[in-house]
Amino acid sequence: MQIFKPTFILDPEIIRANISFMAGKADREGVQFRPHFKTHQSVMIGSWFREAGVTKITVSSLSMARFYALAGWNDISVAFPVNLAEIGLINDLTAKVSLGVLVEDSAVLARLIRELRHPVDLWIKIDCGYHRTGLQIEQTDEILKISRMAVNSPLIRFKGILTHAGHTYGAPGPDEVKRIGAESIEYMIRVKALIKEYGECLISIGDTPSCSLLESFSGADEIRPGNFVFYDLMQLYQGSCNFGQIGGIVACPVVAVHPGRNQAVLYGGAVHFSKDRIKVGGREIFGQIVLLNGNSWSDPWPGAFLVSLSQEHGILEGDESLIARLSPGQILGVVPVHSCLTANLMRGYHLKDGQPVDHMQGI
Amino acid sequence: MQIFKPTFILDPEIIRANISFMAGKADREGVQFRPHFKTHQSVMIGSWFREAGVTKITVSSLSMARFYALAGWNDISVAFPVNLAEIGLINDLTAKVSLGVLVEDSAVLARLIRELRHPVDLWIKIDCGYHRTGLQIEQTDEILKISRMAVNSPLIRFKGILTHAGHTYGAPGPDEVKRIGAESIEYMIRVKALIKEYGECLISIGDTPSCSLLESFSGADEIRPGNFVFYDLMQLYQGSCNFGQIGGIVACPVVAVHPGRNQAVLYGGAVHFSKDRIKVGGREIFGQIVLLNGNSWSDPWPGAFLVSLSQEHGILEGDESLIARLSPGQILGVVPVHSCLTANLMRGYHLKDGQPVDHMQGI
Repeated sequence: MQIFKPTFILDPEIIRANISFMAGKADREGVQFRPHFKTHQSVMIGSWFREAGVTKITVSSLSMARFYALAGWNDISVAFPVNLAEIGLINDLTAKVSLGVLVEDSAVLARLIRELRHPVDLWIKIDCGYHRTGLQIEQTDEILKISRMAVNSPLIRFKGILTHAGHTYGAPGPDEVKRIGAESIEYMIRVKALIKEYGECLISIGDTPSCSLLESFSGADEIRPGNFVFYDLMQLYQGSCNFGQIGGIVACPVVAVHPGRNQAVLYGGAVHFSKDRIKVGGREIFGQIVLLNGNSWSDPWPGAFLVSLSQEHGILEGDESLIARLSPGQILGVVPVHSCLTANLMRGYHLKDGQPVDHMQGI
Repeated sequence: MQIFKPTFILDPEIIRANISFMAGKADREGVQFRPHFKTHQSVMIGSWFREAGVTKITVSSLSMARFYALAGWNDISVAFPVNLAEIGLINDLTAKVSLGVLVEDSAVLARLIRELRHPVDLWIKIDCGYHRTGLQIEQTDEILKISRMAVNSPLIRFKGILTHAGHTYGAPGPDEVKRIGAESIEYMIRVKALIKEYGECLISIGDTPSCSLLESFSGADEIRPGNFVFYDLMQLYQGSCNFGQIGGIVACPVVAVHPGRNQAVLYGGAVHFSKDRIKVGGREIFGQIVLLNGNSWSDPWPGAFLVSLSQEHGILEGDESLIARLSPGQILGVVPVHSCLTANLMRGYHLKDGQPVDHMQGI
């Protein structure tokens, strides 16, 4: 495949192996696998999940729920506090598919019940320590009130409690990820005990680091990881994946080489990678360099990183031996720091053999 | 206009005033005004520039040059090191419009000359201190070599030297911006003196902070600011604009309110704003809150900022009096930190009266 400009290249074997790994783990552990599709946002990649037996999915917006409903998915949770401003779309979607929504406020639920025209699946969003959204266990009255309203409303199918332990993303290593993951499940079990009088209550958990690393999900009923489909540098440096599990890189043309400062300039900037960054060896980096070999990519070039980004430019810094082999017009690979945001900006992919792959933002 | 999800709202009066301000300043100072269109990426907003007398523009990629060539612009500089991987597109474009390209490497120019089929406008990219791309004055031999090759090649129209003093963006305040801006022009004048034997050589400069603040561009022949069309928090807190010059905000639904921690959750995250951030009062922030009043927005609510972003979520932190008036379903405004990246992600706008405005990424 000839590369003209930044191009997101996927290795379908790695991605299918990541899907099998997580589906197999869910199966072994006896939990429902409801993968988050916000990372890939693709109908084609969605079909690979379907081939692995997946029938229920998670998305991050009602627009994305509509996209996947049109693509034939009919059991979709929107893992985002329900947006009352889009009640019209909720009523459209619930007429056609099983739609799951998240509530963390009884006033929101009251309005939802008033304006809803078809049944909806309802989850109470619980904050297990990430402190972004959700109710904490101390807010027992509100949790009980929502549960009571839910079971008494004919259009509400009360599913259970849902959390996202997003604080695993900041954990320094696998042990800490596993500790946070296990604690989150314990926390959810305690919340569930509060509302046992309201009948069946599932526990849904969701972050890629703990779903990747935990050996047991005991107590949980559903997992919703998303990032694992591609993984990325954030997961690699945390120890939540190995390099061979990274399913995609961005191919970028070299446009300038500065041997005097061991730098080169790539066509590949903030409009391709986002500005998400991680620290490696005390330094903030925006991507790591790999060489492209025909239809594949090499291991990372040691110590070669994108060290700054502007709108279209990426500044690569590497050792002399790398810089010496670069010339403008050449194509290098960049492993993204955060594959979800990179995919969202790139709005489309190509498989290693050149076949184009859709992305919701590019349609 | 009814808002359902994050929506970029523009005030056309402010934007037209920003355009008049910069066009008038260029006129008074006797420099060519070649605005950068990468900020708005819009045909409609481009037409407002045309109404202000603009006929020459700057873009950040060859794809964007093609977009504006199709929209009827015929003098377009691509302020990015020429990407040899897109030589086919360069040959297509130069057949139809005056295309300006940047070179900072004689080997790149040699290949360009070999593969070019129609005349191109050529600028030598100079690094006046930002150290992202370009040649420094000490690289005299390379600057002379490129100039010589350019004037001797029948398909090259040598225009001059071009720089982007991107280090003004990191300057702590107006005085430092002006100092860097003036130094950059001085530097360019010294580079120009090196190549005076090669005939006419224009000096093109380009960053919004110094174009906004410098009282004189004496010595320069062309200015290429882009961000000033909307401005943003980065420019506001630096002192390169005032609040009344900010031409757009993102309207975001409130989806959850957490009075216990003086926070609320907005539908508006990294896929809308990017992860660009600035420090305000020692704290990293991702946006500032305004109230929406009918067709307009208020001054910023004091001390109310987006303090963290995930893919779709923005966490607002404010004082009790703000949090007390919020409820889910309501719409708030967010002033973006970096309007270029926000516009690129939002991929479309609405004027205050509801009229949709195109963006290249949304077409």
